[in-house]
Amino acid sequence: MWNYDKKLQYPIKIKECNPQLAKLIISQYGGPDGELGASLRYLSQRYSMPYAEVKGTLTDIGTEELGHLEMVGAIVHQLTKNLSEEEIKKSGFAEYFVDHTVGVYPTSASGTPFSAAGLQVKGDAIADLTEDLAAEQKARVVYDNILRFADDPDVKDPIRFLRQREIVHFQRFGEALRVVQDNLDSKNFYAFNPSYDKRNRM
Amino acid sequence: MWNYDKKLQYPIKIKECNPQLAKLIISQYGGPDGELGASLRYLSQRYSMPYAEVKGTLTDIGTEELGHLEMVGAIVHQLTKNLSEEEIKKSGFAEYFVDHTVGVYPTSASGTPFSAAGLQVKGDAIADLTEDLAAEQKARVVYDNILRFADDPDVKDPIRFLRQREIVHFQRFGEALRVVQDNLDSKNFYAFNPSYDKRNRM
Amino acid sequence: MWNYDKKLQYPIKIKECNPQLAKLIISQYGGPDGELGASLRYLSQRYSMPYAEVKGTLTDIGTEELGHLEMVGAIVHQLTKNLSEEEIKKSGFAEYFVDHTVGVYPTSASGTPFSAAGLQVKGDAIADLTEDLAAEQKARVVYDNILRFADDPDVKDPIRFLRQREIVHFQRFGEALRVVQDNLDSKNFYAFNPSYDKRNRM
Amino acid sequence: MWNYDKKLQYPIKIKECNPQLAKLIISQYGGPDGELGASLRYLSQRYSMPYAEVKGTLTDIGTEELGHLEMVGAIVHQLTKNLSEEEIKKSGFAEYFVDHTVGVYPTSASGTPFSAAGLQVKGDAIADLTEDLAAEQKARVVYDNILRFADDPDVKDPIRFLRQREIVHFQRFGEALRVVQDNLDSKNFYAFNPSYDKRNRM
Amino acid sequence: MWNYDKKLQYPIKIKECNPQLAKLIISQYGGPDGELGASLRYLSQRYSMPYAEVKGTLTDIGTEELGHLEMVGAIVHQLTKNLSEEEIKKSGFAEYFVDHTVGVYPTSASGTPFSAAGLQVKGDAIADLTEDLAAEQKARVVYDNILRFADDPDVKDPIRFLRQREIVHFQRFGEALRVVQDNLDSKNFYAFNPSYDKRNRM
Amino acid sequence: MWNYDKKLQYPIKIKECNPQLAKLIISQYGGPDGELGASLRYLSQRYSMPYAEVKGTLTDIGTEELGHLEMVGAIVHQLTKNLSEEEIKKSGFAEYFVDHTVGVYPTSASGTPFSAAGLQVKGDAIADLTEDLAAEQKARVVYDNILRFADDPDVKDPIRFLRQREIVHFQRFGEALRVVQDNLDSKNFYAFNPSYDKRNRM
Repeated sequence: MWNYDKKLQYPIKIKECNPQLAKLIISQYGGPDGELGASLRYLSQRYSMPYAEVKGTLTDIGTEELGHLEMVGAIVHQLTKNLSEEEIKKSGFAEYFVDHTVGVYPTSASGTPFSAAGLQVKGDAIADLTEDLAAEQKARVVYDNILRFADDPDVKDPIRFLRQREIVHFQRFGEALRVVQDNLDSKNFYAFNPSYDKRNRM
Repeated sequence: MWNYDKKLQYPIKIKECNPQLAKLIISQYGGPDGELGASLRYLSQRYSMPYAEVKGTLTDIGTEELGHLEMVGAIVHQLTKNLSEEEIKKSGFAEYFVDHTVGVYPTSASGTPFSAAGLQVKGDAIADLTEDLAAEQKARVVYDNILRFADDPDVKDPIRFLRQREIVHFQRFGEALRVVQDNLDSKNFYAFNPSYDKRNRM
Repeated sequence: MWNYDKKLQYPIKIKECNPQLAKLIISQYGGPDGELGASLRYLSQRYSMPYAEVKGTLTDIGTEELGHLEMVGAIVHQLTKNLSEEEIKKSGFAEYFVDHTVGVYPTSASGTPFSAAGLQVKGDAIADLTEDLAAEQKARVVYDNILRFADDPDVKDPIRFLRQREIVHFQRFGEALRVVQDNLDSKNFYAFNPSYDKRNRM
Repeated sequence: MWNYDKKLQYPIKIKECNPQLAKLIISQYGGPDGELGASLRYLSQRYSMPYAEVKGTLTDIGTEELGHLEMVGAIVHQLTKNLSEEEIKKSGFAEYFVDHTVGVYPTSASGTPFSAAGLQVKGDAIADLTEDLAAEQKARVVYDNILRFADDPDVKDPIRFLRQREIVHFQRFGEALRVVQDNLDSKNFYAFNPSYDKRNRM
Repeated sequence: MWNYDKKLQYPIKIKECNPQLAKLIISQYGGPDGELGASLRYLSQRYSMPYAEVKGTLTDIGTEELGHLEMVGAIVHQLTKNLSEEEIKKSGFAEYFVDHTVGVYPTSASGTPFSAAGLQVKGDAIADLTEDLAAEQKARVVYDNILRFADDPDVKDPIRFLRQREIVHFQRFGEALRVVQDNLDSKNFYAFNPSYDKRNRM
Repeated sequence: MWNYDKKLQYPIKIKECNPQLAKLIISQYGGPDGELGASLRYLSQRYSMPYAEVKGTLTDIGTEELGHLEMVGAIVHQLTKNLSEEEIKKSGFAEYFVDHTVGVYPTSASGTPFSAAGLQVKGDAIADLTEDLAAEQKARVVYDNILRFADDPDVKDPIRFLRQREIVHFQRFGEALRVVQDNLDSKNFYAFNPSYDKRNRM
């Protein structure tokens, strides 16, 4: 279970509204490569992951992504909450506003509600961890692209933090994959599935 | 942010596999009225909820639902992890197994991946809380229906706990709605939206 | 069955095109909280609703929503049908136009085709009616938001009518819920499901 | 607008439950080629259809499909409403029941909620009517397939009625397409789009 | 199986970037009536199509649509690959760019990822071919609409080629439908399904 | 463009129907980790892949996956085409049959139509290739799981071929990733995106 800590994982204090930027950043709230998908993927993969050390990595990173999701929601809300109706009309933000006002709804930048179709749990240690490596790369790219459009240091700063954490996660998942491979028959990593076939579970 | 506590919110120790039951219970993992949708709804609605007391309720309940999600995942996994291939073939579980082995993937009982299309954030305090009241009722019904099919006391027990918590949440959201109404112009609750128009924010 | 009456439930005569506004209003045609979802929800919930009076309310309101859907379609079409290609290019309407020309297609403002994932039928009288209360609130919010962007009285007038009807529906569903509660064991409304368990059907 | 007539378009009196059959027939409630999609397609295409006669055909058939939708819902409900929990467990109906009890929810036989992605409005008279011809054929095939599995004359009878109406609709849409072609430049039917370009509107 | 030929089916050499136009043309890459859906529909329908001549038509046209898909991808990429960040910001292309940079992702103009829900395989020769006739008409309309917005002859030229091929395909599917009808009992085309019932297979 | 070769990439001659097995194998036709998604992912990623050698790998493998898709379709059709209505009723295949008869429709084993939401094109060489490594692993797992349920050597044989090709593809994508890394600044692989920023394009 989880306990809530009222503090954001990294401080966010945005002084200027910017709905066009909010429309892009929201993809890391509800888009295919965002923090919600990341958290859900890792916390779901835990159950069938056979190695305690790797299970622990998935729980840690999945829990941290919840804190990232919270950060992204805070960024989006601070970028939009004080908008006047005039600003909303001019900014291309009205299509989102008409259904959500300035609430934070899990959607991608392109307007599609979050779907778990963008993540996978195969119940196979190698496939699941390779999926996780890809997820971290894809998230890094979105943060790269957000940084191209953000000029406000109040926004760039937490976004850089989030981006850097993706790179650290990528490294941790690489280590986890090596733990799995060390535990398998090195001549044929695919001889059996340690998440289902019972030969090599710790 | 959140801190992980290694303890389940309520103990789960299931001794007998039952894939047909797992196929139903998984709807409270990734189905439209399940714990994932509940948590995501409440934690997302917080940002634009104008009253600190109600913001706090949404955070509390949203955080508790994460623990419920974890419980449901544990139930599904314990009901399936020791299945032999023969048992899977006979049980109607093969369509799930072929894509996820015994991993826990966020899907409904009918096989649809989780979608945020089943929840809403309107950025309006009254609409959002009424949505929450409905969500808790819908979840209660699913637990009612699961209990019709579960004979195993190891399963019935945590399911009854989860069901009872939905009823408590329903009451808390009712109280939160009254807090909002007390703060609005009682002659016309809809004169303005306290999540956007600035008149009555605490 | 239904008989068609050539008259709109409320007159709509819009003289000026406005594709940006059409792009917002179309969410009440095919969006998650629009008239199509409302009609489908109520007309589908009827079958399992155990009390004749409440069944009748669902049929009435579901039928009225069909007339509202027709009104919204008429508004969208009148706002777009005389657009020149130049106006379409400048207005951000081209992404809709390329696939639908000036036809009326059931989509949300964000561009997602209508999905029944945004509505629910639990086959439980209390859950279904609470869902209906939430639906009416959510629709009211969208009409509130549309009114923020509409200056044309030809548009504001029918939109205000539609908004007011949502509020009346909300009240009728509240009365229906009380009818259901009066018919159930007041010490425990959830002792059984009157839509399935046979104890208390009228 | 529409007025409700309490009478079903064709009588339905089913005496025997059959959940396996209900699971198939429900595809004509919420599946891609069912009555809901048909009604929505025709009633949406009306707005941009330029010829009064064809607009009338779309309204007539769209309205009739609402009555068909009602019939299919009645069939599904009569086939399931008196099921005991034991019968539900044995029949493969539990995955639907857990989320909807014996309510009628718009889904396909394969378990996917209704989506307007299965229908189209191009705002082009020829494309829209050809789409309608295809829709009627596809619906006929589903009724053909349902008839392969239904032995109960109480079910076969209304299903044959529905199937026959699809064939009649197909013929009416063929006549409507000829009306459109008669109104266009016979050397090049595609020289302009009568739903948008203004040359040939009646 | 297929062999790749490095040559585009029709030459494409676009010198000027135009992200707004790319956003529309991409609907023929991943939208409901685009080349991907067309190819997938025809190549999937082949398996159950009972007449060798018609099977061959489906394979031919399905294979040609792959080449069209490639052309559309090339057009979209040439229209976007040299965009500066400044141009992207101004052009309404940023919502796509944030998740895909200048990669080519299968989506509609409205931002919805490609879904097979927009195509059908009924396993019935008449229904499948009528579906194909409709598909070609719908694609023609999208090309008509793209041509309204494209001024660059480098773009208009291949688009006109693609549009003309849709019209040719429509004619070929009409011929195929006649082959099927010639093979069926002319008094009742629907007496049996030649894709399943074994009476009339060649 | 592509040229069709009438020969299957690997021979498939299945003598015995088996609808339960077809229902699982169809996930490699239209499921999230199947051949359609693979082909679409690789052929779409080509446009923005900056290194000729890697572009070639994506084209080769994407083209081969088309041949695999054809093989899976042939397997599914041969497993179902001669089914009698009685066999269909008994086998749990009726929910698919009612909408598709014995046609081959792109869906997952769980009944969800194919969606591109299960694949990604980031327009970033490293992210795209890591995504491809994950895709090949996930496909391998599905083939592993299919082999658990298939006893018929006519089925096992081509499935083993398909599985082995996934492993070869995984290796080729690993080599491609090394080519990309060799071309980037080894101190910081993420300093720029070679698919967009122009420093290091070949």
